[in-house]
Amino acid sequence: MLDLIRTLVVPNRTKIVLLSLDGLAGVPHPETGRTELETARLPHLDALAAEAACGLIRHVAPGITPGSGPGHLGLFGYDPLQYRVGRGVLEALGIEFPLQAGDVAARGNFCTVDADGRIVDRRAGRIDTETCARLVERLRAIRLPGVEVFVEPVKEHRFVLVLRGEGLSGRLSETDPQALGAAPLPVRPLEPAAARTAVLVDRFVTEARARLADAAPANMVLLRGFDQPPALPRFPETFQLRAAAIAAYPMYRGLARLVGMEVLKTGGDFADEVATLRRHWDEYDFFFLHYKDPDRAGEDGDFAAKVRALERLDGFVPELRALRPDVLVVTGDHASPAVLAGHGWHPVPVLLWSRHCGADPVRTFDERACAAGSLGVLPAQHLMPLVMANALRLTKFGA
Amino acid sequence: MLDLIRTLVVPNRTKIVLLSLDGLAGVPHPETGRTELETARLPHLDALAAEAACGLIRHVAPGITPGSGPGHLGLFGYDPLQYRVGRGVLEALGIEFPLQAGDVAARGNFCTVDADGRIVDRRAGRIDTETCARLVERLRAIRLPGVEVFVEPVKEHRFVLVLRGEGLSGRLSETDPQALGAAPLPVRPLEPAAARTAVLVDRFVTEARARLADAAPANMVLLRGFDQPPALPRFPETFQLRAAAIAAYPMYRGLARLVGMEVLKTGGDFADEVATLRRHWDEYDFFFLHYKDPDRAGEDGDFAAKVRALERLDGFVPELRALRPDVLVVTGDHASPAVLAGHGWHPVPVLLWSRHCGADPVRTFDERACAAGSLGVLPAQHLMPLVMANALRLTKFGA
Repeated sequence: MLDLIRTLVVPNRTKIVLLSLDGLAGVPHPETGRTELETARLPHLDALAAEAACGLIRHVAPGITPGSGPGHLGLFGYDPLQYRVGRGVLEALGIEFPLQAGDVAARGNFCTVDADGRIVDRRAGRIDTETCARLVERLRAIRLPGVEVFVEPVKEHRFVLVLRGEGLSGRLSETDPQALGAAPLPVRPLEPAAARTAVLVDRFVTEARARLADAAPANMVLLRGFDQPPALPRFPETFQLRAAAIAAYPMYRGLARLVGMEVLKTGGDFADEVATLRRHWDEYDFFFLHYKDPDRAGEDGDFAAKVRALERLDGFVPELRALRPDVLVVTGDHASPAVLAGHGWHPVPVLLWSRHCGADPVRTFDERACAAGSLGVLPAQHLMPLVMANALRLTKFGA
Repeated sequence: MLDLIRTLVVPNRTKIVLLSLDGLAGVPHPETGRTELETARLPHLDALAAEAACGLIRHVAPGITPGSGPGHLGLFGYDPLQYRVGRGVLEALGIEFPLQAGDVAARGNFCTVDADGRIVDRRAGRIDTETCARLVERLRAIRLPGVEVFVEPVKEHRFVLVLRGEGLSGRLSETDPQALGAAPLPVRPLEPAAARTAVLVDRFVTEARARLADAAPANMVLLRGFDQPPALPRFPETFQLRAAAIAAYPMYRGLARLVGMEVLKTGGDFADEVATLRRHWDEYDFFFLHYKDPDRAGEDGDFAAKVRALERLDGFVPELRALRPDVLVVTGDHASPAVLAGHGWHPVPVLLWSRHCGADPVRTFDERACAAGSLGVLPAQHLMPLVMANALRLTKFGA
């Protein structure tokens, strides 16, 4: 599909805003029978929905609960089943580590082992982030032949390991036995081409243990989720868009950078994001704007907070419209129903506004209304071609 | 997709009921403009639909009329275009013959040939089932080198032939010329590996003719639909479900056994099936419950009987809900519109009820209402992942 789109793209000066409301969709509250979206007062989103083409976005596949990585890749036009992003890579993106093609990234934990090398705490008593940063300094001193070694602290007992060099492979087994009383496992190559990388990682672990011997409870490391960044077609070239990402959370900035978007400096609040958008309006054609709050509330199981987060967002809609984008899309990367206190598999409402978006019966922006929209139930990766069409940036297929 | 599901399955103790109303969907009666479902009074199904996520199931592909085999394989999560079940295998399943991997099964007809060996009646005057059984005894005495031979009577002139042994192939041409006045055809191998099987089958036909010489009108056999059981991933292992099938009709029991479900003993009426369900409730996680009557009425072209069959089923819904399943799905394996007096290609209503199924606008259980449901038009094989998600038996894809 991306290959097809590439052949159809035509230049234009139209402006696109893709607003991702993280964890947008919900399920009805058992007492009221209404979802978070149906409960919230959303006059501006409803008015926009009434003028827009609406539908439901299905990320990944029916019944599959997307993580934030696959959820956003879909919105960016990439089939998340074709382009997989592993745990280690997501962890590196989450701290905005500038991963390069061919890098191998892994999620690391400091852990505690006893005198016999058996794990007694898989999280080293959740050491604080400062201790983590101090111990990471020791690991950074490790040298491996023929590769660069990067170690970056994350939060508490977590860190990221990245190896950079020629001919590495991320097809490696984990060292974490996921059980207490067992010793960390040696790394096994899961394909012949990974043999050398396995030797290098094992050597890293051996050296790490030596350098952490006096650092109990954080006297050992566990590594998992080895992966390399997927070979994603670059977003700006594929769609011929000057594309910018505005997101307060590092993980989403990392994902946007992975596909080649420019990541703009912004503040921690959505008001800062909107200000950033306004400031850079003339410089780009496409803006990915990320709003984290509905997901946070949904994951906390806080129905009322999710309703408030949606209502707060609604207040920003006039400012967005005042910029006069040619295409304005509002959707999300996955459901986070407060009732589930976590991500959900449910399809996510989408509204796509443009002057040419077509007739649509939907008058309110919620799960139930959007089920009857003219976009139908749409695989996430089909959204970008629709966006491009509405921006008058795709020519006809066939004469 | 099944490979993906397998990696995401997590254990749980939730209970799932999949109720298949055979031949469920219909088309409007020319006089009233209402389908069988729209005509029937279905208070309990309508109430369930109002609380459920609804949609339409498309089996196989748009415009394709599914047989009961592919129709049910889709509901069980198998893409029916990928996993083909041949005529001979379906015939064997229909008498619950315990097919094994590698068996070659064929549908057999007794027929009448004249003195020159030319067919004068392709169905041997539709001999009665007792005569069929008696003549099958003669065929059972046939011995072939290196393989076991099974011959099983079906109904009237029909029987099933199964060859069991190493290195057999079902890629064989039919012996039935589908015309009177022609002699039965020799079996041709359709792939090199089928050469030996072709020789064996020809020898069976030659011996059968000799043993039936005095049995006119049933003095010869025709064989068609040679096939081997498909290599289906086993349902209980794929979905990590203790799965049981409750069906009065042998064909559906056979299909369920083919995918590895346990087939429970039950009576001939749907009330017996529900009693069986209740009796075994604690022993399984997943129940496939089959209701044949709408299909029978639809195939008979009896609109009123199909309406009655649906209304009768509706009366059982409270009993099913009283068991408090975590997920209750009501759908069918294909349409059997009374107006067509046969199977139809039309998509089939589906309702999926769980506490987490999400908001959906559908208030009645019929073709028209379900077309606006939140599940959209769903390929049959996507239903099981949704069922698993609603049973909280799938973890997130991607972090």
